[in-house]
Amino acid sequence: MRIGIVAPSTPILPETAERVTAIAAANFPEAELVFHPQCFLSHRHFAGDEETRAGAFLEVANDRAFDALWFARGGYGSCRIAEPVLAGLGPAARSKAYLGYSDAGYMLGGLYRAGFERLAHGPMVGDIRRENGEAAILRALAWLTASDSAALEPSLGAEPAVAFNITVFSQLLGTPLEPDLAGHVLMLEDVSEHMYRTDRSLFHLTSNERVRRVAGIRLGRCTEVPDNDPDFGASEEEVFRYWCDRSGINYLGRADIGHDSGNKVVPFGTLPGEGRGPAA
Amino acid sequence: MRIGIVAPSTPILPETAERVTAIAAANFPEAELVFHPQCFLSHRHFAGDEETRAGAFLEVANDRAFDALWFARGGYGSCRIAEPVLAGLGPAARSKAYLGYSDAGYMLGGLYRAGFERLAHGPMVGDIRRENGEAAILRALAWLTASDSAALEPSLGAEPAVAFNITVFSQLLGTPLEPDLAGHVLMLEDVSEHMYRTDRSLFHLTSNERVRRVAGIRLGRCTEVPDNDPDFGASEEEVFRYWCDRSGINYLGRADIGHDSGNKVVPFGTLPGEGRGPAA
Repeated sequence: MRIGIVAPSTPILPETAERVTAIAAANFPEAELVFHPQCFLSHRHFAGDEETRAGAFLEVANDRAFDALWFARGGYGSCRIAEPVLAGLGPAARSKAYLGYSDAGYMLGGLYRAGFERLAHGPMVGDIRRENGEAAILRALAWLTASDSAALEPSLGAEPAVAFNITVFSQLLGTPLEPDLAGHVLMLEDVSEHMYRTDRSLFHLTSNERVRRVAGIRLGRCTEVPDNDPDFGASEEEVFRYWCDRSGINYLGRADIGHDSGNKVVPFGTLPGEGRGPAA
Repeated sequence: MRIGIVAPSTPILPETAERVTAIAAANFPEAELVFHPQCFLSHRHFAGDEETRAGAFLEVANDRAFDALWFARGGYGSCRIAEPVLAGLGPAARSKAYLGYSDAGYMLGGLYRAGFERLAHGPMVGDIRRENGEAAILRALAWLTASDSAALEPSLGAEPAVAFNITVFSQLLGTPLEPDLAGHVLMLEDVSEHMYRTDRSLFHLTSNERVRRVAGIRLGRCTEVPDNDPDFGASEEEVFRYWCDRSGINYLGRADIGHDSGNKVVPFGTLPGEGRGPAA
């Protein structure tokens, strides 16, 4: 199978691509990783300008020779190209798997709204740079190549699920990228956000009438939380319980996702029995 | 006239109240400033717990002896009490003026939605601590006591207007605090936000169909913007022009508001001729 890699947000270094290619070759020889050259471009904050980033995404998504599109890395920037990309997707794009998280959530949200069926929140190429990053890469490839159930977030069950970064999810509400999540388990995680910002995001999203139609919310990991001065005085779990309680949303407990190498795969939508994933 | 001061977000110090009281006594002897003791409380991140903060707001708002409610300071926290406060406001609350900005925007948004007519975005008590802070206090008191037109943001004209902090406005969209801004000039300012965050907020708010009904957007000052690594490569004005252009919202130029002592007063709604303001 062929996995195309693009960077709708920020660039990766060539050595990052080389390390992940070597891991794939050693462990998943059936998978060919094809890095679009756009992954290595730099334009101000981004991995190339908007036309270039959108063009690369569409090249891979619309090419039947690719079985999957894997996001290189997060950061910030995919919300700037998501609408032009969605407008340019052809039939070949629908038969593909898409795997990413963090800033990739804007694209995954828009694709899910557009009815795409093989989307997942999970590790990206750039995660190789994390502590124990190889585990994240192996998990992503296990899902991409064989829908390995060992890669999945363990609480996944009969209800449809999605996963997002808290800030990204809060900012796609009310935009053309917001999917209908009625009846879904919504898993949320974040990184590098002050606790007062997380609290504010939870106000925003739990006050939204459409979000209140979810089956419930699960809390992933919130890591690298900068110190508040004065201390915010509540943990992320207390913040989640507070806003879920106020809004009448079920708080379902923790989710095994986050900005770390332990980040498990959350396929979007309903679990189709054992064969869930891109090869299903 | 009596001006009641409460702190729905974070506390002020007693010496801040003393300095502002002295300025008022010297320049506006007709104004009596009454600091609710809640202004000086500390509870974790906040100026007292939620019940205390909401209670203080309601005490002042619902008391006919007060002509105005002046926000002590911003920070974070009023979104946690806004809905209980709105539910508890009685008839006396509607005849009052309300002045604040930044985090106070959650309250002002909810009050405007509820049909309150004497709301304004402008300096707060805590601004005395800024460079040249006395000018901000004098401007606030000139508006509160006499609707002095010299206090007003100079671009204000025939169209109704509102002003908000960018982040606060983005986070009240889709919540019970979001007012109907069709036909309004929307003025926006921010402080201490990375440019990528401002860009993301602009994606969020200009993608919103309800926001697209505004008459146009004006950009206030964005100050203390932390460095981006790599540099974001666009100024706040370029960011505003970009998203206004994409979304078909009129970009109307700059507004003389911001987190500084030059922050002018923006009464919410339509300018009723010369007498605009609380004394109108």
